[in-house]
Amino acid sequence: MSGDPAIILLAHGSSDPRWCETFEKLAGPTLQSVPGSRIAYMELAEPSIDTVVSEGVTSGTRAFKIVPLFLAAGRHLRKDVPGMITELEKSHGVTITLAAPIGENPQLGDAICDVVRQELARHS
Amino acid sequence: MSGDPAIILLAHGSSDPRWCETFEKLAGPTLQSVPGSRIAYMELAEPSIDTVVSEGVTSGTRAFKIVPLFLAAGRHLRKDVPGMITELEKSHGVTITLAAPIGENPQLGDAICDVVRQELARHS
Repeated sequence: MSGDPAIILLAHGSSDPRWCETFEKLAGPTLQSVPGSRIAYMELAEPSIDTVVSEGVTSGTRAFKIVPLFLAAGRHLRKDVPGMITELEKSHGVTITLAAPIGENPQLGDAICDVVRQELARHS
Repeated sequence: MSGDPAIILLAHGSSDPRWCETFEKLAGPTLQSVPGSRIAYMELAEPSIDTVVSEGVTSGTRAFKIVPLFLAAGRHLRKDVPGMITELEKSHGVTITLAAPIGENPQLGDAICDVVRQELARHS
C-alpha cells in the first residue's frame, strides 16, 4: 500500500448539470494522472464525499486528502467541510486531511494571467 | 488608444477580508503584467464593477472585458452579471463583454493537477 493518501477533489455541487460538467473537466487532468483520485461534491450532486470515502474504504484506503476546488475559503471550507470531515472520520474509521483551497496556491494566479492573455489575443 | 478592452477580473466578494485578500493575490500576476487591468467585486466588497468602470471612463476607457474569477457558471454569471452589464453599458455609455469563467479554460485543469502533485509531494 502506498503511503500517499487518496486524493478527493472537492467541488461545491449544484443541481445544474452544466456546473458539474465544468468541474469534471477541471478535474480531468488530475483524475487521469493521479492514481486513486476522485471528484466529490459537498452538496446537491453525486458522488458525495461520503460515497467516495465509503467506496475507498471498501477497496482498502484508510487515508484521504481533500483538495478543495474552491478559489477561496468561505464558510463552507472554514466550518461546514471540517464538520463533515470529523463525522466521516468517526463513521468510517479513516483519516482525512483538508488541503488549502486551490486558489491559495500561486500556480493559480499564474494560470489566470495566462487565461487573460488568451482573452486579449482574441482581440488583436 | 489601444484597441484592447480594459480587463476587469471579477470576484464574488465577501464581507470577510481574508476572502478578498485571496482574490487580490490571485489577481496579482495579471494586475502586474496587463496594463489597465483591475479587480472588482460583484457584491459585498469594494471596488464594485460600477466603481472600476466609472474610473476607467474618467481616464478615457470605453471598452471593458470582464474575466470572471469563478470556476464555473452558476446563477451569478448566467443572470446577475449580464443584468449588471446591461445597466452599466447604459449608464456609462461603454461596451462591456463577459468572458467565460476561468474554470472553463483547460489551463486551470492543468494548474489543479500541479497543485495536487505538490500536495502529494508533502507526504513523500
